[in-house]
Amino acid sequence: MIKKIIYPGTFDPITLGHLDLIKRAIDIFDGLIVAVASNPHKNPLFSFSERISMLKEATKGIDNIEIDSFEGLLIDYVRSKRCNIVLRGIRAISDFEYEFQMVLSNRKLASDIETILMMPSENYSYLSSKIIKEMASLGADLGDFVPSIVEKKLKEKLLKNKR
Amino acid sequence: MIKKIIYPGTFDPITLGHLDLIKRAIDIFDGLIVAVASNPHKNPLFSFSERISMLKEATKGIDNIEIDSFEGLLIDYVRSKRCNIVLRGIRAISDFEYEFQMVLSNRKLASDIETILMMPSENYSYLSSKIIKEMASLGADLGDFVPSIVEKKLKEKLLKNKR
Amino acid sequence: MIKKIIYPGTFDPITLGHLDLIKRAIDIFDGLIVAVASNPHKNPLFSFSERISMLKEATKGIDNIEIDSFEGLLIDYVRSKRCNIVLRGIRAISDFEYEFQMVLSNRKLASDIETILMMPSENYSYLSSKIIKEMASLGADLGDFVPSIVEKKLKEKLLKNKR
Amino acid sequence: MIKKIIYPGTFDPITLGHLDLIKRAIDIFDGLIVAVASNPHKNPLFSFSERISMLKEATKGIDNIEIDSFEGLLIDYVRSKRCNIVLRGIRAISDFEYEFQMVLSNRKLASDIETILMMPSENYSYLSSKIIKEMASLGADLGDFVPSIVEKKLKEKLLKNKR
Amino acid sequence: MIKKIIYPGTFDPITLGHLDLIKRAIDIFDGLIVAVASNPHKNPLFSFSERISMLKEATKGIDNIEIDSFEGLLIDYVRSKRCNIVLRGIRAISDFEYEFQMVLSNRKLASDIETILMMPSENYSYLSSKIIKEMASLGADLGDFVPSIVEKKLKEKLLKNKR
Amino acid sequence: MIKKIIYPGTFDPITLGHLDLIKRAIDIFDGLIVAVASNPHKNPLFSFSERISMLKEATKGIDNIEIDSFEGLLIDYVRSKRCNIVLRGIRAISDFEYEFQMVLSNRKLASDIETILMMPSENYSYLSSKIIKEMASLGADLGDFVPSIVEKKLKEKLLKNKR
Repeated sequence: MIKKIIYPGTFDPITLGHLDLIKRAIDIFDGLIVAVASNPHKNPLFSFSERISMLKEATKGIDNIEIDSFEGLLIDYVRSKRCNIVLRGIRAISDFEYEFQMVLSNRKLASDIETILMMPSENYSYLSSKIIKEMASLGADLGDFVPSIVEKKLKEKLLKNKR
Repeated sequence: MIKKIIYPGTFDPITLGHLDLIKRAIDIFDGLIVAVASNPHKNPLFSFSERISMLKEATKGIDNIEIDSFEGLLIDYVRSKRCNIVLRGIRAISDFEYEFQMVLSNRKLASDIETILMMPSENYSYLSSKIIKEMASLGADLGDFVPSIVEKKLKEKLLKNKR
Repeated sequence: MIKKIIYPGTFDPITLGHLDLIKRAIDIFDGLIVAVASNPHKNPLFSFSERISMLKEATKGIDNIEIDSFEGLLIDYVRSKRCNIVLRGIRAISDFEYEFQMVLSNRKLASDIETILMMPSENYSYLSSKIIKEMASLGADLGDFVPSIVEKKLKEKLLKNKR
Repeated sequence: MIKKIIYPGTFDPITLGHLDLIKRAIDIFDGLIVAVASNPHKNPLFSFSERISMLKEATKGIDNIEIDSFEGLLIDYVRSKRCNIVLRGIRAISDFEYEFQMVLSNRKLASDIETILMMPSENYSYLSSKIIKEMASLGADLGDFVPSIVEKKLKEKLLKNKR
Repeated sequence: MIKKIIYPGTFDPITLGHLDLIKRAIDIFDGLIVAVASNPHKNPLFSFSERISMLKEATKGIDNIEIDSFEGLLIDYVRSKRCNIVLRGIRAISDFEYEFQMVLSNRKLASDIETILMMPSENYSYLSSKIIKEMASLGADLGDFVPSIVEKKLKEKLLKNKR
Repeated sequence: MIKKIIYPGTFDPITLGHLDLIKRAIDIFDGLIVAVASNPHKNPLFSFSERISMLKEATKGIDNIEIDSFEGLLIDYVRSKRCNIVLRGIRAISDFEYEFQMVLSNRKLASDIETILMMPSENYSYLSSKIIKEMASLGADLGDFVPSIVEKKLKEKLLKNKR
């Protein structure tokens, strides 16, 4: 049986920390589906299709990976893919508390779906999409934080917003 | 002397975790006033009167309880009820930090009013009104998380919002 | 019905933080029993009887208080006193985690006994019996941290240990 | 390829929380090796062989599980079993900090070995082997906390210690 | 060489906790620049110039202090002042996590700039500009929380908002 | 006026994290005194003189540094050196809580002495002397964690202990 794991998130935008986690998970599982949540109520900087296309570009050349997207409840999506394992990254205490709430809530809704947590490299432990967007809007050079495609798109997006 | 305790909150909406705490507190104190804060700046999903009426429905049959509401400072309300004890629930570290700030700030404003903290059952330790509203908007079945009156009202509310 | 609350601990030795909490609790409840746990496996600095006698001295003049002691399980002691409420102080995250474990474990053993948590004044939020004993052994002046009887006994005890 | 995961620990003694995690992991991976660390410097209550035999008894009837033991470095043991995935349970913030240190230290020593974290059911989130041993020594009824074999052995052990 | 340190923040508005930290830092360093960040995306209650003028008023009579302001990246501002040390206050775990992220992100952007953290007095450990604004909007007396100039301006501002 | 800062600790043994912090602090202050606390009650692995001599060896070639030692209260030592600033490293939440207690306790004992906190590089954020000693006793290769002199001394010490 092939064991695929689903890595859901907003990915607004993907960072080097996300990419690090993706590579670690692919070493363990037979396949990985990165599932971009539409999350319109979070008011993302990048559109749904921009986030998906940056992920595809940034993960080019990685085997056994699929970039997908979903709307609605995560557990419904996971079942629709005939998977039962969800991956979440954990870097800090505040992550831990939020993931704790989500893991237990999701278990109540779907006891057949399990969540595993993994840690990115300590080199990315401080990265957050939120801080990256703030820094980008102030003109920071983000080459150490995001894939090059994201760096380029962030500049374009913020230029357009300023006009 | 009858010792009443006041349990303030936004209750947007009441969860099974709130209800669990209410029952535990009533076993200890002579009476409990659940005090719904108007909190218009928090932009609640349910109106002030909806939140109050769901609380009344969900606590029907519980003795020694009063459902009330207030605007303005909590300490002014507590004094107006001739009480001096406030109850707050605590589930997680982030709760702890916020309650710590509120307890100490309120003590500076009113040294005669004391706050006590209680923990809900571990079965509800992961519940938050915020996550419940997110899940409801995505169509989740919330029977394990909220009283049945709330489940019904959440469905009506979200249907109306979608139209 | 008179509502008494039980405040258990090792009190090795009692600090101004404990005393602050005792005074706050007595304003809320009809009576308070401070219950010194023997805890021989914790290898306390002061003997069981020394800890009890310092507590009695430090709480002289406070009404509605009883200094008692117990061995064995807290819940058995609480029942033997016909009480059902336990008080615990909470100052910091590490306290919170430990109390969380104890509250939930004790509930499983005795669902009729409830624990409430209260915070000492911010002026004592940093006090711990462990740090106080360390500082005393290095010769610090502890007048801001412990009742005067404890300051005196700490000096005697440490002098004796040095000889 | 068969993917086995190694779940190391002191298991002094195994709790219902450990057992819950074992069952969750077996649903995800093809096989699980529970690896008891000798850890003589931790001064365990139960001997190495007692801990192993209680684990065997408590996991009887579970498929795809192996109870094993090791001395020395975890990473050396993991390699000797031709595995590359380690499982650790995570219940609380203090767990999180310790596991964070261990995951990153182990990665520096062996970059080919990855650790995943899973959460036990909220019903066991408060259990710790340390508190269980304390409670057992005070005579508590531990049927809700440990497998029945452990409850029996704890009573025998503590009786022997008292004599 | 004169060592100046830069203390950046939104200061919306300055509290007695900020003032406490300023005084502690001036005792250690040769000079301090309080740098108000414009932060328009944070939607501050007070305008950029109001925040600067309240800071000037509240720090009148303190030597070796300069009140300044900046837009854009903190590290660019720090370099433009020929400084290399940044001061940040830390009161609570949530502060710690955010500062941790900012310190490490800023180091990646500018390895020559270092951040030091200091703690305000325990008397101000619970103060936050956010809670102060909430309490002010409900009519609380804030004399124990903010400098008198801020108390006056908060009342004016909130009166104007109500009209 | 020359501003020296004192960096106290047990240093049992010095790690690359300590060394990283030392280098960061020397860039900011005019001089740094690393002060080894005797701490006999902590039962250190290395003797007082071994810890001092490893520190001297590991910091050879660094300017403006002095390796010193003290017994008794930190504040008495700081005053005896005519300093008023203490440096402490902070890596994790548990560090934060302990440092918080020490900073506030020391301030009560000596209001003229201030503590500043700095973070090591994220590359060393997970290092602790305790885990390093555990790993060394199990035979781990510690070249990424400690200076080479410490690696050598750890091997010698542990060989001697085994004989």
